[in-house]
Amino acid sequence: MRELVLVGIGTGNPDHLTRAGEAAIRAAEVILVPRKEGKGDLADLRLAICRDLGVEAKVRLFDLPVRDASGDYRAGVDAWHDAIAAAWVAALPPEAGTVALLVWGDPSLYDSTLRIADRLSPAPRIRVIPGITALQALTAAHAIPLNRINATVLITTGRQVRDHGWPEGADRVAVLLDGETSFLSLDPDGLTIWWGAFLGMENEILVHGPLSQVAETIVRVRAEARAAHGWIMDTYLLERG
Amino acid sequence: MRELVLVGIGTGNPDHLTRAGEAAIRAAEVILVPRKEGKGDLADLRLAICRDLGVEAKVRLFDLPVRDASGDYRAGVDAWHDAIAAAWVAALPPEAGTVALLVWGDPSLYDSTLRIADRLSPAPRIRVIPGITALQALTAAHAIPLNRINATVLITTGRQVRDHGWPEGADRVAVLLDGETSFLSLDPDGLTIWWGAFLGMENEILVHGPLSQVAETIVRVRAEARAAHGWIMDTYLLERG
Ligand SMILES: C[S@@+](CC[C@H](N)C(=O)[O-])C[C@H]1O[C@@H](n2cnc3c(N)ncnc32)[C@H](O)[C@@H]1O
Ligand SMILES: C[S@@+](CC[C@H](N)C(=O)[O-])C[C@H]1O[C@@H](n2cnc3c(N)ncnc32)[C@H](O)[C@@H]1O
Repeated sequence: MRELVLVGIGTGNPDHLTRAGEAAIRAAEVILVPRKEGKGDLADLRLAICRDLGVEAKVRLFDLPVRDASGDYRAGVDAWHDAIAAAWVAALPPEAGTVALLVWGDPSLYDSTLRIADRLSPAPRIRVIPGITALQALTAAHAIPLNRINATVLITTGRQVRDHGWPEGADRVAVLLDGETSFLSLDPDGLTIWWGAFLGMENEILVHGPLSQVAETIVRVRAEARAAHGWIMDTYLLERG
Repeated sequence: MRELVLVGIGTGNPDHLTRAGEAAIRAAEVILVPRKEGKGDLADLRLAICRDLGVEAKVRLFDLPVRDASGDYRAGVDAWHDAIAAAWVAALPPEAGTVALLVWGDPSLYDSTLRIADRLSPAPRIRVIPGITALQALTAAHAIPLNRINATVLITTGRQVRDHGWPEGADRVAVLLDGETSFLSLDPDGLTIWWGAFLGMENEILVHGPLSQVAETIVRVRAEARAAHGWIMDTYLLERG
């Protein structure tokens, strides 16, 4: 592999794809797509984009290894990343010069692909094509700015919110990777939330309002949608004051 | 105006445009473009995108009013936003149904267009198409993740960094809107910087390394590039520890 191009494909809407992303997919000799991700629609979107661009013949499917969650967390993740890098290589034809990997959202945001790519040896040239993130899909859907004028925004995870509460000094907080409606661990007084699930997709759901008034709605809507689809992806922005 | 579509066009590379952005530009009856922005190339990029899509005939240029910086800052900005909304309306033909506005980067990030649009009366429907931000262009160019694993990122401005120093508890800090190399106000010890100017553009410049070692280089390179071009846009990511 001479070059590995990580193409951010956006977060569920095939029209999030940029011209640069499209060009990189067209130019690649091989396109790596995971065979199954648990969340069915996600792998499907990648294949749908390739089909739509007429480049399906270049797709090589690879099996996403299962992470060993039994031992030390960090060691388990390290071994898993090694196994993913090996699965990429195993799926490639012998002389693959330029390989494209379709990455959900933007490869820079809470994504391991860059770290996995660092394990390849010999090291290929790595190129990154940015893509629309879940946070951008969220603010676009609500038609709101991410930040207040001249103010700061903290991007964080559900776990951080549960473990550390409202971040000291933060004015707005954007939360990803939250499988447990962690906003419930915060004192809702004075907080506003803009929440979204399946952003950019057909079944997009939006709720916003004072957290004290809409938290229960979000919990209920989220549980229903999750039951109906078998999985859910959601993200939200919180504001204090 | 029945509908106003804010189209994020990315940050200097016309290939940042998404399919959704392209479709919105094609579908609009009128495309509003500021006549002059001071930074020549920026208005030019918008026109180049329209020319490239063959929709130049729909472009209406408007004069960007000058902000009155003499009195109270907030009042000056408010009056300026009113004047911009009025300039949009003045530039429109009588029966403009769907109007597109091409916004640098993503309309959600340190941008006033949504706030200006709120002043329109009667209020049109507002639709936002996300676009690639300067931060994404930065991390893509350096081929780095924005965040450390499971950790937080604070998005902030040069002024906040100058006024408040390193944000309490922050692990990584992304800085926009910094006309004054505000990283110089921080103790460089233990800080790493990934800096970029003219990101996504032909004359993109990248510097990265320990802040103590590269700060002077950035100051010099930035001054030279600014002198050569007449203006500069730069952004950076800082990491502690
Ligand atoms: C592993 S992170 C990857 C983020 C991705 N790289 C991006 O740029 O958006 C996955 C998290 O992103 C958020 N997410 C991704 N796609 C989403 C969508 N379509 N709707 C809502 N949230 C989404 C959820 O918070 C999810 O837990
Ligand atoms: C008013 S803000 C608008 C940000 C824009 N909405 C976005 O999504 O990136 C302008 C700031 O963005 C950053 N910026 C925008 N375009 C840039 C580029 N091509 N290269 C470097 N920095 C850029 C600079 O920090 C600049 O001061």
